[in-house]
Amino acid sequence: MHSIKVEDASGRNNNAGDGAEASSSPSENAGVHKVCLPPHRTTFQKLGHRLSEIFFPDDPLHRFKNQTGLRKFVLGLQFFFPIFEWGPKYNLTLLRSDIIAGITIASLSIPQGISYAKLANLPPILGLYSSFVPPLIYSILGSSRHLAVGPVSICSLVMGTMIGQAISYAKEPTVYLQVAFTATLFSGLLQAAMGFFRLGFIIDFLSKATLLGFMAGAAVIVSLQQLKGLLGIVHFTNKMQIIPVLISVFEHKNEWTWQTIVMGACFLIFLLTARQISARNPKLFWISAAAPLVSVIISTIISYLIRNETHTIQTIGHLPKGVNPPSVNKLHFGGPHLALGLKVGIITGVLALTEGIAIGRTFAAMENYQVDGNKEMIALGLMNIVGSCASCFVTTGSFSRSAVSYNAGGKTVVSNIVMAITVLITLLFLMPLFHYTPNLILAAIIITAVVGLIDYQGAFRLWKVDKLDCVACLSSFFGVLFISVPIGLAIAVGVSVFKILLNVTRPNTHVLGYIASTRSFQSLSRYDTAVRIPSFLIIAVEAPFYFANSTYLQERTLRWIREEEDRIKANQQPAIKCVVIDMTAVTAIDTSGIDTICELRRLLEKRSLKLVLANPVGNVMEKLFKSNSLEAFGLDGLYLTVSEAVDDISSSWKPEKPSEEP
Amino acid sequence: MHSIKVEDASGRNNNAGDGAEASSSPSENAGVHKVCLPPHRTTFQKLGHRLSEIFFPDDPLHRFKNQTGLRKFVLGLQFFFPIFEWGPKYNLTLLRSDIIAGITIASLSIPQGISYAKLANLPPILGLYSSFVPPLIYSILGSSRHLAVGPVSICSLVMGTMIGQAISYAKEPTVYLQVAFTATLFSGLLQAAMGFFRLGFIIDFLSKATLLGFMAGAAVIVSLQQLKGLLGIVHFTNKMQIIPVLISVFEHKNEWTWQTIVMGACFLIFLLTARQISARNPKLFWISAAAPLVSVIISTIISYLIRNETHTIQTIGHLPKGVNPPSVNKLHFGGPHLALGLKVGIITGVLALTEGIAIGRTFAAMENYQVDGNKEMIALGLMNIVGSCASCFVTTGSFSRSAVSYNAGGKTVVSNIVMAITVLITLLFLMPLFHYTPNLILAAIIITAVVGLIDYQGAFRLWKVDKLDCVACLSSFFGVLFISVPIGLAIAVGVSVFKILLNVTRPNTHVLGYIASTRSFQSLSRYDTAVRIPSFLIIAVEAPFYFANSTYLQERTLRWIREEEDRIKANQQPAIKCVVIDMTAVTAIDTSGIDTICELRRLLEKRSLKLVLANPVGNVMEKLFKSNSLEAFGLDGLYLTVSEAVDDISSSWKPEKPSEEP
Repeated sequence: MHSIKVEDASGRNNNAGDGAEASSSPSENAGVHKVCLPPHRTTFQKLGHRLSEIFFPDDPLHRFKNQTGLRKFVLGLQFFFPIFEWGPKYNLTLLRSDIIAGITIASLSIPQGISYAKLANLPPILGLYSSFVPPLIYSILGSSRHLAVGPVSICSLVMGTMIGQAISYAKEPTVYLQVAFTATLFSGLLQAAMGFFRLGFIIDFLSKATLLGFMAGAAVIVSLQQLKGLLGIVHFTNKMQIIPVLISVFEHKNEWTWQTIVMGACFLIFLLTARQISARNPKLFWISAAAPLVSVIISTIISYLIRNETHTIQTIGHLPKGVNPPSVNKLHFGGPHLALGLKVGIITGVLALTEGIAIGRTFAAMENYQVDGNKEMIALGLMNIVGSCASCFVTTGSFSRSAVSYNAGGKTVVSNIVMAITVLITLLFLMPLFHYTPNLILAAIIITAVVGLIDYQGAFRLWKVDKLDCVACLSSFFGVLFISVPIGLAIAVGVSVFKILLNVTRPNTHVLGYIASTRSFQSLSRYDTAVRIPSFLIIAVEAPFYFANSTYLQERTLRWIREEEDRIKANQQPAIKCVVIDMTAVTAIDTSGIDTICELRRLLEKRSLKLVLANPVGNVMEKLFKSNSLEAFGLDGLYLTVSEAVDDISSSWKPEKPSEEP
Repeated sequence: MHSIKVEDASGRNNNAGDGAEASSSPSENAGVHKVCLPPHRTTFQKLGHRLSEIFFPDDPLHRFKNQTGLRKFVLGLQFFFPIFEWGPKYNLTLLRSDIIAGITIASLSIPQGISYAKLANLPPILGLYSSFVPPLIYSILGSSRHLAVGPVSICSLVMGTMIGQAISYAKEPTVYLQVAFTATLFSGLLQAAMGFFRLGFIIDFLSKATLLGFMAGAAVIVSLQQLKGLLGIVHFTNKMQIIPVLISVFEHKNEWTWQTIVMGACFLIFLLTARQISARNPKLFWISAAAPLVSVIISTIISYLIRNETHTIQTIGHLPKGVNPPSVNKLHFGGPHLALGLKVGIITGVLALTEGIAIGRTFAAMENYQVDGNKEMIALGLMNIVGSCASCFVTTGSFSRSAVSYNAGGKTVVSNIVMAITVLITLLFLMPLFHYTPNLILAAIIITAVVGLIDYQGAFRLWKVDKLDCVACLSSFFGVLFISVPIGLAIAVGVSVFKILLNVTRPNTHVLGYIASTRSFQSLSRYDTAVRIPSFLIIAVEAPFYFANSTYLQERTLRWIREEEDRIKANQQPAIKCVVIDMTAVTAIDTSGIDTICELRRLLEKRSLKLVLANPVGNVMEKLFKSNSLEAFGLDGLYLTVSEAVDDISSSWKPEKPSEEP
């Protein structure tokens, strides 16, 4: 057994007999291994490597390696149009599954589309347009097999909130539509550009915790907004903070109509019950999938029957027949609302990506295939660019539709095509049927959809596991609720970034002890079996050495030494002679950090303490070398492992004592 | 020797014979050590620990531990008023050194004070006021023995720049003074508050690299601004960007006067030469220390002699005799300029702290004593609060004065008192002597002082060691030069923070191999002697697992596996059966990171690959445990060290083969 103690360096000598070593260790001391620099690379090579890690972490061209020209062409075609990849393998069995799934999603997406269009303050028909063109585009370009695309609550909501605050659809419908389509175009351009320039990592900064709070906040606001439809209020605020919305609800009490309230409450209970049943028993998924269509049909019939008795129940009214009209003429790149369009485009674009890609990845992980994030972005982006020219507003992968499609047995994006065809038939022939559909049913559908976005259990789990994640979640929740969508998101991203910085600014440091049975050094406070090595103080630093923490780390190291010296004095143990800093977890260093280490070494030298570093990682080693700090440390100030440092230094002390003997 | 191979698990069995182990390993497998959770602490204890690390990293109360009541009182008095600590030990020898040093700094600080006051667009006399009261306050409260306080170039410059852009001193002198004193008060309040609330770490975010660029940019602007005095220009811009300043210099060519230019050039050359001599030979420090006073005297005499010949040389003019008048009545907390005062106060306050504390720490490190950053902040803050009521503008520890004092043999803050007395005598009796002092000499002194702040060698060193630090430096340089002081600083802080985030977003990952002679696992690309272990892929992740990198780390891990599989296929080696993630350098984890690890485990399980974690640090282990993710990993998915993981897993495969034999 190899025991590391001051008195025993036999393990080290045994090592010297190891064949592999003789060649690798040119240093004077046979037992000590040189700490290598990483292989030399020029600045350009390093920059290239770094850029490729930033933009191509998944090495997207790896499949083209070692292929013939024709094969490369086919692979390229498949790369850009995934339809060529799955198309040739498509068969009737798959088609049957996809047709069933497609019709099921259509039955959900027609009422949902109409509702979400209303959520965005847009004419209801746009919801159907947006469920027709985008799915067709996505089925050609998309790399996810299970993503069902269409308008989603979060983007519709942001659109309705942000544009609605500046422009009233009732007063200026043309301007409103112009801004909405322009925003859709911008969001598509942003998505495609982010995909093209491989900037997908930007959406990583919206952490799951942030999105959890954001979605819950948005869901609360939207649900309250829907009270307009459920209570029958005519004059309603277009603000989106919780306080003005609540004031608006109670200010217009005289506009509440009991017929609307009763009918709305019944359908809301029906929809929520259906959702609950499906949630408890996933096999009954079709109940919640069919419930919206069923409610729309029943409520439309009721509304039609009582149309002459009362005029208090507001209905959708006339919807034009026919497919998407072109909307290129409505794209407007000037005027006072350009900035608004741009802002809405950026926020909805980023949110749409986050939702679409997260959902795509979830289903891909469940079915064990890969979704290329950046390619998905291009697909979603092109879908929105085309959409903005064909009277569609922002669309992306919808969680509810994708889940229903998956449960209904959808196997490929052909389900999207089937859905689009069903919507097309509706658009061409069935539009008059929606004339008497009451607004309250759309409000009920929206509430049912968004209430599911409130994941209080998730928030509780965050609290249990990571308090600061929970703070990020709550700050985006309250930010959205009381201030606004972009500010709420900005605050949450700020909190998340602050968390990273906090971890860097005040990193953990531990004093290590030796666990003989595992031959490893571990934290003394964590492992009872770890024992101190006399005359040594081994400190592990768990963070990069940066400007932001260099002062702290210097002070903390000095404090560890002071505390250790106090302890030693109290216990009358041998004094510290050497401080070892375990650099394994110091993943990077900057010039301030280097200065700190040199400073620390100087300070300790004045107190007759030796400072050595153990196991610096590649780039830290490189920077120490380049800054000439290694010269100060010399050959004996750097060790490959902590145990080697302890072995070597304690053996170098030995000769001092014997020299006194004669 | 302990060799870790699939075929050989003898080392592990040897381990089992180790005495220390039997008690520490209650797991079923005798050779495997349990990965411990850190000691349990409640949320409040953790919060308390975290807060104490943030605010009290140096444990300032440690000296009060185990002391009697009276001793505690004395220590407390010494803690708050360091004068009680060194006062009793003060003796005549020290006094002699301090008197020499004090008079030497005074001879520097009188012309410097006048110059810096002009730099801040303030009446010259304020420079002397600011060299009288603040040093007295600091000598009572300050904990640094070598810091000589007074106005400094950087703060005077920021003050002059920012206030000068909004208010013209020539037109509204009272308003200008009001804003200047109010800003001084705010800066003092900010400093004292930061010290009191122990927020000293905020100034750490101004890294050395940022300050390097900032100072160089400011020095260039200030030097160009001084062309006003050196060329004799009367009408000059009060803007502070390089382009308007240069335009202003050449626009007023008709105002240039040759007498001023010749005299200015001569003195500038004299001062720069003196500086150069002292820089080459530190023993001749007194040459550069005395040069400003000598130039002032000579130039004043010349100016006095030729006063009737020419009126082209502008002079300081009448200066009032007497000590600091009170300025409490000039503090103004309202009106249109409050925001400006606040902004100037914050920026100068932070810069003053950065400079003062950095200099204090430098000298403390040289003389091997400790300076308490937060206490220093309170001292500097109170100094500025009192100063703002006694006609002083922002003061802090000055590098040039402290260096001169140190070189002149100053031993304690008494040198500050001596300097203050000398300034007092000047204020009372010698003020009329400065009547004919020409402005050009002040310009020459300022240029000489600020040119020394341009450290191009430091910038080159940054480039050599750390490219991104150099980018931060350059961005603050150009930001200050072309935009403005606060924006330049903000950009530089942004770049520094971006650097931290980049490191977290795209961390390094390595494939590890085994170095038999050191019994350690190291990067294969760095150590030629490291060898792969068949059937294992060991990946070291060098960053915390955060939302910002969880997608990347998942993709990168899958890519490592893919690349390894390609390599194995090409070389016909045994397939990978187990992926080990070395978590030693994963210093933290959040909920997104936990999800990623679980997801990765699920993905690999589908591909019949085992994923295990080695050596998770304390808080990572705790979070994995709290999130119940450990249940998925089970007892055999976590190992204390990589070698134990390799040993244990490879030994568990062994029985499979023998079972086929019979």
